[in-house]
Formats: sequence, C-alpha cells, structure tokens
Amino acid sequence: MKHVKYGKCVRCGKTYAAVPDLTTCECGGILDIIYDYESIKARLTKEVLANRAERSMWRYRELLPIEETTAPTPLRVGWSPLYEEPRLAQQLGLGRLFVKDDGQNPTASLKDRASAMAVAKAREAGARVIACSSTGNAASSLAGNAAAAGLSTYIFVPSRAPKGKVAQLMTFGATVISVQGSYEETFELSKQAIDKWGWYNRNAAINPYLSEGKKTVALEIMEQLNWEVPDYIAISVGDGCTIAGLWKGLKDLHAIGFIDRLPRLISAQAAGCCPLNRAIESGMPWEPMEENTLADSIAVGVPRNAEKALMAIRESGGLTVNVTDEEIMAAQQLLGRTCGVFGEPAGVTGTAGVKKLCEAGKIGRDDTVVSVVTGNGLKDVANAIAACGDPITIPSDMNRLLAAFAGKGIGAEGV
Amino acid sequence: MKHVKYGKCVRCGKTYAAVPDLTTCECGGILDIIYDYESIKARLTKEVLANRAERSMWRYRELLPIEETTAPTPLRVGWSPLYEEPRLAQQLGLGRLFVKDDGQNPTASLKDRASAMAVAKAREAGARVIACSSTGNAASSLAGNAAAAGLSTYIFVPSRAPKGKVAQLMTFGATVISVQGSYEETFELSKQAIDKWGWYNRNAAINPYLSEGKKTVALEIMEQLNWEVPDYIAISVGDGCTIAGLWKGLKDLHAIGFIDRLPRLISAQAAGCCPLNRAIESGMPWEPMEENTLADSIAVGVPRNAEKALMAIRESGGLTVNVTDEEIMAAQQLLGRTCGVFGEPAGVTGTAGVKKLCEAGKIGRDDTVVSVVTGNGLKDVANAIAACGDPITIPSDMNRLLAAFAGKGIGAEGV
Repeated sequence: MKHVKYGKCVRCGKTYAAVPDLTTCECGGILDIIYDYESIKARLTKEVLANRAERSMWRYRELLPIEETTAPTPLRVGWSPLYEEPRLAQQLGLGRLFVKDDGQNPTASLKDRASAMAVAKAREAGARVIACSSTGNAASSLAGNAAAAGLSTYIFVPSRAPKGKVAQLMTFGATVISVQGSYEETFELSKQAIDKWGWYNRNAAINPYLSEGKKTVALEIMEQLNWEVPDYIAISVGDGCTIAGLWKGLKDLHAIGFIDRLPRLISAQAAGCCPLNRAIESGMPWEPMEENTLADSIAVGVPRNAEKALMAIRESGGLTVNVTDEEIMAAQQLLGRTCGVFGEPAGVTGTAGVKKLCEAGKIGRDDTVVSVVTGNGLKDVANAIAACGDPITIPSDMNRLLAAFAGKGIGAEGV
Repeated sequence: MKHVKYGKCVRCGKTYAAVPDLTTCECGGILDIIYDYESIKARLTKEVLANRAERSMWRYRELLPIEETTAPTPLRVGWSPLYEEPRLAQQLGLGRLFVKDDGQNPTASLKDRASAMAVAKAREAGARVIACSSTGNAASSLAGNAAAAGLSTYIFVPSRAPKGKVAQLMTFGATVISVQGSYEETFELSKQAIDKWGWYNRNAAINPYLSEGKKTVALEIMEQLNWEVPDYIAISVGDGCTIAGLWKGLKDLHAIGFIDRLPRLISAQAAGCCPLNRAIESGMPWEPMEENTLADSIAVGVPRNAEKALMAIRESGGLTVNVTDEEIMAAQQLLGRTCGVFGEPAGVTGTAGVKKLCEAGKIGRDDTVVSVVTGNGLKDVANAIAACGDPITIPSDMNRLLAAFAGKGIGAEGV
C-alpha cells in the first residue's frame, strides 16, 4: 500500500508496518492508520471522483488502507442517501438539516462499512475465518458481508442477545456461540478462541482498519454536499469507534484539500449511559457507567475506543448532548413522521441530540447540521411498538369510522 | 404527458385520458398505460442513460407516466443492487445466476417503487391525502414515501395484521384503522371512505400507474446487465401486480429497441396459495384458493390483478413453480449463507422456485437466470427465528467450547 505509511499508536506513538492483521500496540494503545497524503493528492482529485461510476464505499479506495489489487467486497455497502429535510429544519429552528440514512445498508446499519473492510483485509491476510464478539450490528454485518465473500464467521454473543439478532446471524450461516454469562465473559472466551485458532479479528477497537471503513460515511456526506462543509455533524456514540472514524474521514479530506475547514462534531449519548460525554463535560478521565438505556447498540458502559473518540470530539470543538430514552423514542417518531426515515433507537439518538441542542439554544437558525441515522428501525421492532399509540380499532362500519374520526378531531374533509 | 397516449382497458379495450387520478374501466377491467414509443425513442438512448447521475427509479423518467415538471419523490427508491452469484449458480447447476436485492429500498421492499409513483401522481392530482387497504409492504411503503413528501395517509388493515407492521405504519405517522373483520371487510370500509372523502387511491389493482412504478425493477435489471437479456427472470407472485409490472418494463425496453428479445418469466407461488399458477397449469380460468402459507405478502387467495399477471406469464412463455413453506425457508437460509442476502419469506420465494426448477431439470447449465428478492427478512423475524436451529450455548470456558466444536465436527483448525 504505497499510500499508507504505517499504523501509529495513539497513546505512545510507536509505529507498526501496516500488515493486514494489525491489532493493537504493545502498550495496549489503539493504532491509527497514517497515510501519505501527498501520494493520494497526486492520484485523487474531485474531478476523478466525479467521473467514477462506483457507488459504494469502495468509491474512495485511494483513501482506504487496501492494496490496489484488492477487489471490492460483494455486498453494496455505503453510498447511502443524504436527504435534505427543510420541514424538519423549520420545525426544529435550524438553518438547514440533512439526514444521512445509513440504515440503507445491506444488513441495515453503518457497521457494514467496518465489516466490509474486515472482509477485504481478511482476504489480503489469506484468512478463511473471521471472528468477533458482539451483541448487535457489528455481528450481523460481519456475518452478512463474510457470507457473501465465501468466508466463515465465528460470532460470540452473550446469551441475553435478542433472538432476532441471533436469527439474522444464523441465517447468514455464522457459527454462533451463545455464552451463558456477561458480555465481558463473552469477550474473554472469544479472545481465547481467536488466540488459539488465529482467526481474523473483527473488533473495531482492536483492528485499526475498521474505523477506516467507518470513515467512508464522512467522505460520502461531504461529496453529497458538494464539499460544502456543514457547521455540525451529529452522531450517536457507544464504544467510540464510529465517531472516531467519522472524524478521521473529515481530517483526511482536509489534509488532501477537498474541504477548507472542519465541521464540529455533536456527540449524542444516552443519558443512562454517557461515560464519554461525561468525561468531556467534566474535563476528567472517563469512568465506567451502568448501561441504562433501551438504545442497545450504544449501551456501552466501558467504551473500548475512548481515546480516539475523546480526541475527535475535543479536536473538533464538539458539543456533547445526553438524551433520555423518552427523547430517543420521540426522535424516532419525529424522523418517521416528517422524513419517512425509520431508525432504530441508537440510530436516531443523534437526531434526538440535535433537537435537544436546538431547544437549549446552542444551535439554531444560522447552522447547517447533518444528522447520521446509524441503523434501521426494523432491527428493533419491539421498542417501536411500545412507543406507538394504538390504532383506531373498529368493525367495518362507516358510522363507527365517522365517530372514531370525530373523536380524533379528524373533520368532515377527512384531513 | 406527451409520451403517454392513454389508459387502455385490458378487458374491453376502451381508452381513457391519462388523468392523474385514473382508476379502473367502467367494465371493471384494469387499465394499462399506453406510451408513444416513437416519442420516447427520440429522447431516450442508452448513451443518454449512461451519462445520467440519478440513481433511483426516476432515472427512467422518459418511460414513466409523469409530467416533465414532476419532481422525483424524496426517498431514494430503486437502483437496488444486482449481485452475480457464481457460487450459488454452481451449487444449483445453473449457467449464471443474478440476485436483485429489492429489500434494499427505503422501507425495505419492492413496493416502494409503486408507492413512490403513487406519491408523484397524488402530487400531480393536487391531493393531500393518500389511502390504501393492505396488511403489509404496500402499506408501510406508502406511509414512508408519503411522510417524506408531507402527505397524509389513511391505511386500513385487518386487525390480525402483525403488530410490527402496524408499528412501522404508525412511526411513519399514518392514521391506521384496524378493522375487526376479514380482509374483504377491511377493503370494503376503505373503499367507502375513499369514495366519501375523495382521497387519492393507492391500490395497485385499481390505480394503473402503480405497476408503472414497479416496472422500474425490470429497467434496472436490464441496464445493470448491460442490456444482455437473461433467459429467465424469477419472481414471487401474489395479487399479480408485480409480475405484470416486471413484464411491462421488459416490453417497454423491447419496444424502444434497448433489448432485442424478451426473457421468460418464472412465476413462483406458494404451494398453499397458487391460484394464478394453477390457472396457467390447468389452462382453466383462475379460481380462489385458501391462503395457506407463511409467506404473508403473497398469501392472496383472490388475486386482484389476475388478468395482467396471466397475460404476462403466457406472453413470455413463462414457467410456473409452486413451493412449500419448507422450501421457502430453505431458500431463505441458502440466500443468507451463500449470498449474504436476507429476504422475507415472500421475498425469497422466487429463489426457492429457481432451485426447484433446477432440481426438476427444467432449467440448468445453459441458462442465465435473474432472481428478484422482493422484501427484507427483517420484516418478519419470527419466521426466520423458527427456521434457524439453536446456537451453541455454553458457559465462558474453552474446554466447553472445544467439546461443543468437536460435537459439531469443527476440527482442531477451527474451520
């Protein structure tokens, strides 16, 4: 990879050759992939990009840590739609608002971007098996992307994992090990198994290539905005890998001169589980928290990528915002009703944060904001059901319909 | 619409001006939209198309029954991926196999194509409200596409409708009327309400524009295949609107000279509910059947678009195939494991049919087949759960993992 210099520890600065199965630094720090931006600038221009037919995350291959000969992975990951939402902007009191619907990915979450990268790197490493430990979107996206590439997956989940997610995994042919114990115990068993069998490791806080996959969401947002930088990009935050990836993509674009300034990040966490935001707000080191939220994908009390995430929020001059479960479910309805976008609870947490910041007067009419929806609401129908009221329930009788409409204030015009 | 001549009854041949709120013929027959292909040929060439940036169903606007001034609808509908699947082709004994994953649409089904068209035509008609009666994907796609466009929806569902689908509808802000009665009674109440209030009617067997939206799946398949015509296109069949739309798209392309021959259709129905296939197989008129299948989206015992569907299958020299629920769920696993595509039961019925025809020796090594997956498996997690076996369930203990692997025949190499 001529355009990649090395992996560099974010904690101690030690560098490592960018081999395909790179993991963490010997000091325990997470690595960051360092590029040769001059080499990239010589090959990638906005015009080159504009003429490229590929509409997936592999559109940006000059900015990705893969060999020139590495083929795109089979599923169409990325190039999700960016919708301008003038009615919602008006309602919230924002200048402009865009919603990036990353639930429109093959397995219905942003995690497909990292899992496709894992598959590409596993192929470079000559691996036939990829493993991870996860309860949610990382697992299903890995299982789906690996299946399409003909690779096997071993996935460790705690036995409390929702049946629906296990069904997705098993439909994709993963070997699923349901561990009777906590998530920590699940992770521990997966680590021992990965060490023993040498499976390729898909864990975004261990394998430094994965947030390079996630960063493609930033590359797309900026190209879809025709390189006009918004004031803020809002996203939900769990273990920290996604917001770190988002920031890395923005910095890459700045380094190669595609954008002339950087937006500020909005880090949205659940009020019941916000260790990273609490660290930013208090100026103290982060401390573990309970995982007290229904937004399961970001219920991470011990964030595994705290260093990169805190660095990203601070470097960007970012805002933090913590939202209750009620605010999250209200945002789900708001996005559904106003934009036709159905996000899972963690997926709409960024939008819930944007709404709360508007109400607090911290952002407003002068601001252009992008809100990333990170996963599809069909992943968690149970919480959506609980949040929706009851439908009008009547026999097949026009008089009963008229009475029900009158009771709901629906007038004679049927509107 | 200079390129649209009129709507023509498929039963009696009577023609009607193509007003935006066109419904059925006075004889009760369904209308077909008739184009002026010479006018279209003068404006649309393969080169024009190749240079077009739009990646949605509105890419094909010269072939769609909308005014030149009608804007694309807000959600990104269409341009779903077409995957070549050499490993599955090999396994089934086919020459080449392509899977069109139409679960990759905003509300996760092919029905988004019809609902986006309904929204476009409702806007032309100046309507503020759209209504339909449905239990499934038509309803949720209408609710989502209308919400994004700022239109209201009234949706009538039988009270037996799964809670998950009702939750989707209500998240999108539809007014949902849950009718305590059969589907026929539900339809009847919706018809009275639509007549009374003059809401725009989104019912694919009444509104002739909707299958014009559905036909874009055929336009995309052919462009994605670089206009090389496959031998067969397989799709699941319920009320008949979708296969009729598919065929219309192919005939349009043939009429404007973009393709030089027509593929044969494969009409896949559930063995427990196959009134259209039975009519083809027996050469007799179709007769109602019980709705005895778990593939709810195609459990249509009284198909509402039988005429267009039967005509399409016959004109194409098509094949029929009826698959059991077990064969449907086996196809779901096969597509998941081999292709990383998770389809709902009705969504994978076409692929189940292709497999069955291969086994019967009716198609094989000389054939190129496209199989359309019409909806995402996340829409019906319950059936997927029932079809998956149990995961390996153990405490966090390497010895227990080794024993479990040995029991499953997983060897010392962890593969």
